[in-house]
Amino acid sequence: MKTYLECIPCFFRQALDGARKTGAAPKVQKKIMDEFARIIPHVSLRSTPPEIARLGYALLRKLSRNPDPYKEIKQKSNRLALAMHGKLRRKVSGSRNKLLTAVELAIAGNIIDFGVKNNLDVDTELRRILAKEERYARRKDLFHYREFKSALQAARTVLYLGDNAGEVVFDRVLIEEIKRRDPKKQIFFAVKEKPIINDVLREDARESGIDRYATIISNGSDAPGTILRFCSSAFKRIYRKADMVISKGQGNFESLSRARRPIFFLFMVKCPVVERETGAKRGDIVLLSNQKTHGRISIAHVSSKNTAKKV
Amino acid sequence: MKTYLECIPCFFRQALDGARKTGAAPKVQKKIMDEFARIIPHVSLRSTPPEIARLGYALLRKLSRNPDPYKEIKQKSNRLALAMHGKLRRKVSGSRNKLLTAVELAIAGNIIDFGVKNNLDVDTELRRILAKEERYARRKDLFHYREFKSALQAARTVLYLGDNAGEVVFDRVLIEEIKRRDPKKQIFFAVKEKPIINDVLREDARESGIDRYATIISNGSDAPGTILRFCSSAFKRIYRKADMVISKGQGNFESLSRARRPIFFLFMVKCPVVERETGAKRGDIVLLSNQKTHGRISIAHVSSKNTAKKV
Repeated sequence: MKTYLECIPCFFRQALDGARKTGAAPKVQKKIMDEFARIIPHVSLRSTPPEIARLGYALLRKLSRNPDPYKEIKQKSNRLALAMHGKLRRKVSGSRNKLLTAVELAIAGNIIDFGVKNNLDVDTELRRILAKEERYARRKDLFHYREFKSALQAARTVLYLGDNAGEVVFDRVLIEEIKRRDPKKQIFFAVKEKPIINDVLREDARESGIDRYATIISNGSDAPGTILRFCSSAFKRIYRKADMVISKGQGNFESLSRARRPIFFLFMVKCPVVERETGAKRGDIVLLSNQKTHGRISIAHVSSKNTAKKV
Repeated sequence: MKTYLECIPCFFRQALDGARKTGAAPKVQKKIMDEFARIIPHVSLRSTPPEIARLGYALLRKLSRNPDPYKEIKQKSNRLALAMHGKLRRKVSGSRNKLLTAVELAIAGNIIDFGVKNNLDVDTELRRILAKEERYARRKDLFHYREFKSALQAARTVLYLGDNAGEVVFDRVLIEEIKRRDPKKQIFFAVKEKPIINDVLREDARESGIDRYATIISNGSDAPGTILRFCSSAFKRIYRKADMVISKGQGNFESLSRARRPIFFLFMVKCPVVERETGAKRGDIVLLSNQKTHGRISIAHVSSKNTAKKV
């Protein structure tokens, strides 16, 4: 998807959040904002939001001299999620529709990214989402589960694009369920090459134990999404050849929503711009097949542009 | 008060809101954001927020070629508030403490600026504030009413710094009450020289009927606040000589909170940064004498800076 004008204030908010997480002095924080401001006139709104955010985070690392400002947060998220793993598995094994529950939990894992502070918060959020489980599954326009299930049944190789640390434990629960149903499926789990925000890296994926069920591969890039022209050839080969691509998180959706190959996007809607793109509400979990949404999302896109003009 | 780093994303949000209000094409909107971004590296956080916002709104007018993008909104606010004038007067005349009620209504008038859309919204908000009337008046740290009342009794000349169109009708209600108590008091009502956001201009003040009770003067500037070095000498003479200064709205507070002369600030708290500066919550109405807060607000200031560093 393209970047909206509303994304600009939000980039600055994220830059400031990030600048503070580095522990940089207020002067350095201001410098980070200033240098990011200098970039803005040179970016096109035809870029996707993760392309622009990537430039901001590169500045953040350079000026703060901190290559991984979110390291502690990622470690904490991993610990928090790992402590819940048994419970998550039991939720799936106790469900009448195990695959659906595993899918919903995997998407719900995205809440760890949502400023969630402790186990109790995660529990509350999970309960909120699972209480709506059937309601989500019934929303045929936002939850292409039937298509997902049949694509999965037919696929021999699956590329699963990871999103965040912590959340990766929820991804493992879905991947475990996929392998339980068909141990012969080959699954690739893609991580980022270098630290970018709290995105999942190889070390987080290993810590989550996902390597017992999937082959961990790097996408070769440090963007907070999957920007193909920054990805490695090795990654792109798997991306092109995999029978099915499962993309987790809003960042991957933002960067791949216009991709030509079939992709299933699993994510929680986190901002007003993506509300407009999808027609879902913030906090909703969605499962979108780009084969079904291409037309519709383009229309939503155009009409929201017109609305913006009118306001 | 100084500008906080959190103000930067908020400036961009305001620039975008403003750009849309001008009806400018999306390309021009992006240009406005770009040119504002170019300014950021050159501004110091020692400036007050209205000083920086002023530069953004100047760009907005220039690039959109619209000298008064908020004109319609101001006219609508004036009409909305004028239709309520009789009711507001009756609230005051029916009150056991007429001056206090008039003060609270004048501050509450600030909600018109708060994205309020119709009469019903204003009524709801007024009820919310008046329901808490006594609670606000009891908060001695945020409502220096006793000092306000005695300063008013002693003053022969009062300078009243206006805030927004629409709200000016609520100001009139307070000024009417002041004149009812002492018809000999001379009151100056200060407006902005040129259009800036929805700030009150001479034409709005006249439309509200305030000229029957006060002398309308321009402050000579187009800042969304009162930045003395941009004000006219004629205004500054009155500012220095008036026995009492009543300052309405957050913009005037932001620009004058460090002023040396005694000022009473009447406003509704509208953002997290001013929450921190004052210790009040968003939506609270406050009446602050800078003679009482100077020490305290400085302390809050320093401690909030430390918090920011730790985050």
